[in-house]
Amino acid sequence: MTLLRSVSIVGIGILPVRKTADTDLRQMAASAVQAAMDNAGIQQVDALYASNMLSDELQGQKHLGALIADEAGLRSIEALHIRAATASGAAALRVAYLAVASGAVDRAVAVGVEKMSQGPVTQALSKALDAEVDLAQGATMISRNAEIMQRYLDHYQLPEDALADFAVNAHDNAQTTDHAIFRARSVSREDVMTSRMVHAPIRLYDCSPICDGAAAVVLVPTASATKQHDMPIQILGSSVVTDRFRLQDRQDPLQLQAADLSVKQAMRQAQVTLTDIDLFELHDAFSIIACLSLEAAGFAPPGEGWRLAREGAIRRSGRIPIATMGGLKARGHPIGATALYQAAEIALQLRAQAGGNQIDGARVGMMQSVGGVASTVITHILGISW
Amino acid sequence: MTLLRSVSIVGIGILPVRKTADTDLRQMAASAVQAAMDNAGIQQVDALYASNMLSDELQGQKHLGALIADEAGLRSIEALHIRAATASGAAALRVAYLAVASGAVDRAVAVGVEKMSQGPVTQALSKALDAEVDLAQGATMISRNAEIMQRYLDHYQLPEDALADFAVNAHDNAQTTDHAIFRARSVSREDVMTSRMVHAPIRLYDCSPICDGAAAVVLVPTASATKQHDMPIQILGSSVVTDRFRLQDRQDPLQLQAADLSVKQAMRQAQVTLTDIDLFELHDAFSIIACLSLEAAGFAPPGEGWRLAREGAIRRSGRIPIATMGGLKARGHPIGATALYQAAEIALQLRAQAGGNQIDGARVGMMQSVGGVASTVITHILGISW
Repeated sequence: MTLLRSVSIVGIGILPVRKTADTDLRQMAASAVQAAMDNAGIQQVDALYASNMLSDELQGQKHLGALIADEAGLRSIEALHIRAATASGAAALRVAYLAVASGAVDRAVAVGVEKMSQGPVTQALSKALDAEVDLAQGATMISRNAEIMQRYLDHYQLPEDALADFAVNAHDNAQTTDHAIFRARSVSREDVMTSRMVHAPIRLYDCSPICDGAAAVVLVPTASATKQHDMPIQILGSSVVTDRFRLQDRQDPLQLQAADLSVKQAMRQAQVTLTDIDLFELHDAFSIIACLSLEAAGFAPPGEGWRLAREGAIRRSGRIPIATMGGLKARGHPIGATALYQAAEIALQLRAQAGGNQIDGARVGMMQSVGGVASTVITHILGISW
Repeated sequence: MTLLRSVSIVGIGILPVRKTADTDLRQMAASAVQAAMDNAGIQQVDALYASNMLSDELQGQKHLGALIADEAGLRSIEALHIRAATASGAAALRVAYLAVASGAVDRAVAVGVEKMSQGPVTQALSKALDAEVDLAQGATMISRNAEIMQRYLDHYQLPEDALADFAVNAHDNAQTTDHAIFRARSVSREDVMTSRMVHAPIRLYDCSPICDGAAAVVLVPTASATKQHDMPIQILGSSVVTDRFRLQDRQDPLQLQAADLSVKQAMRQAQVTLTDIDLFELHDAFSIIACLSLEAAGFAPPGEGWRLAREGAIRRSGRIPIATMGGLKARGHPIGATALYQAAEIALQLRAQAGGNQIDGARVGMMQSVGGVASTVITHILGISW
């Protein structure tokens, strides 16, 4: 893979993640776009790539690219809607990256938005699975993830609290994050293990919340990035990989093969190794996925990802910090927007603008989104280019 | 706009458009992908960009990229789902083009699929509009297009049969098209004008049909195209342009400004003028849109697009042939697949493989898709490179 033009992020815009946003879907998205353009110091873009998973059912909208461009006052630009189920935000970032890299587009904005506070969320979310097969078996996203977690605990003969520290870390990190949904207080291992059982063995604190949010980033060619912003964040690697679609068709459901390959591809393109990665904004929609993603990336051997949480390696001061601003679990997981929050948060970390959440000296960050039951995995590696 | 790598189509795959396909959504898409890869003479691709508008509601599927890749037996590839409402097929072609042009992807397949024979189609289709505004007013895609048509007839003081020849041409051309949904017989002006009034002044024959279909094209860098296929079709121009989202927010609803700009951009990139274009596969979902698209492209002055139909200029032997294999109206308009049918049909024309539908000596073809009420317009120009 020879990428023909290097691409950098020069503007970020994020809305607070909240249980219920006080504006509607299009306004949320337009606000994030405007904030990202302001941050980049530009008044216009050539193209907008929007991501969203649930607006078909929740807002009755199927034409989000043009809708958001119009609401943002961006006239006559290119606008498309990009999806990969629960990895949709990363899919929009990927296409914005391809568009700028190709030379066809000089200034692109990738914007993600999700307003989950209205409508039949669980039912719509389940369409990330194979509706015609999984749903006929009564499966939902939570039940499939519960199956994976149970299998993990059984296979490695682990206590039921083995994964509890993922939630503890995420909530700790969210406390100093203004835009996080859960800022109120830390949670203890005991809080996690006494929280409501949602679908055994998954408890409430093992799940990311239903919430509203929007986030955007502006991309330009790296060659012109310094003109735009004094701290451009280069996209060093970008990879989308799919796996067998249904969990039950995989040889080993505990191995996230798409995550494994996606990280390898992104690292090869970025010319970095695992030790170069200063933080990893992973897809902790469920604690078990955070654990398996760490294993798939190679940060721990199979069956030992949970130890990274238990032993503090995932803490901001640890070997491989994750969810540095709260992650999906405590910053929140407004589906289509999530990866744009990840990109913006890594940009803040690499610009040394992360305030109380700062990882000292961070120069390379990895972000990853998981679509469905890891049927699609999208990984980006970001680095400073100054 | 400096495109960094030229891209060509080296394989096409189309399923017959039918009222009800005898396989399900995923199988239809996988069959089209396989046919396109067979046509290109390749066994693997690096990426798949899927388009579909209605599967969220009609099949309960929101994760089509990975679903189709899995069904097609394409393991570990990139797969994303690209949309722009009724222009979704062209949006997937656009992203596949950007991916190959960028250097990130060497072999891409763009595949469109729609299975409209199950579920609440009209309701889902209306989400191409601004659901929160238009639908509150009781508007549907048909009613909005009827408003435009009525305004056109009134403004230019035309008889109610002014647009009838668009349907006549489309049905004539479909008679020799194996993959068209309407192959049975030609229709007369009288047939059109006595057909059922669907939403005045739109009659049944002014509308494209509800149908099932899937189509795909394989894209590679032009530099390696001749190795793949002896008649590669180069993508000379590609443009996506949005307009004010709602019809009622536009100064002149009879002017499709996004179509105007999109054609100009695509022609500038392709370095061609209108006289170079040998055929125009336009978005004749409704007769009035065919008419306005011809005007917006510059083939007729405002208010005179209908004359191109009346006087035979749109016929296969005419000055600007449209719907050469039946168009949306008579080949059929399986929404997410439509633009891939257009691309495949233009490839057949330029390869001189169009049989009874052949435009003699065709070297340049233009294709266009219209999202919603022309809120998004996507234009591609294809040419022979041998």
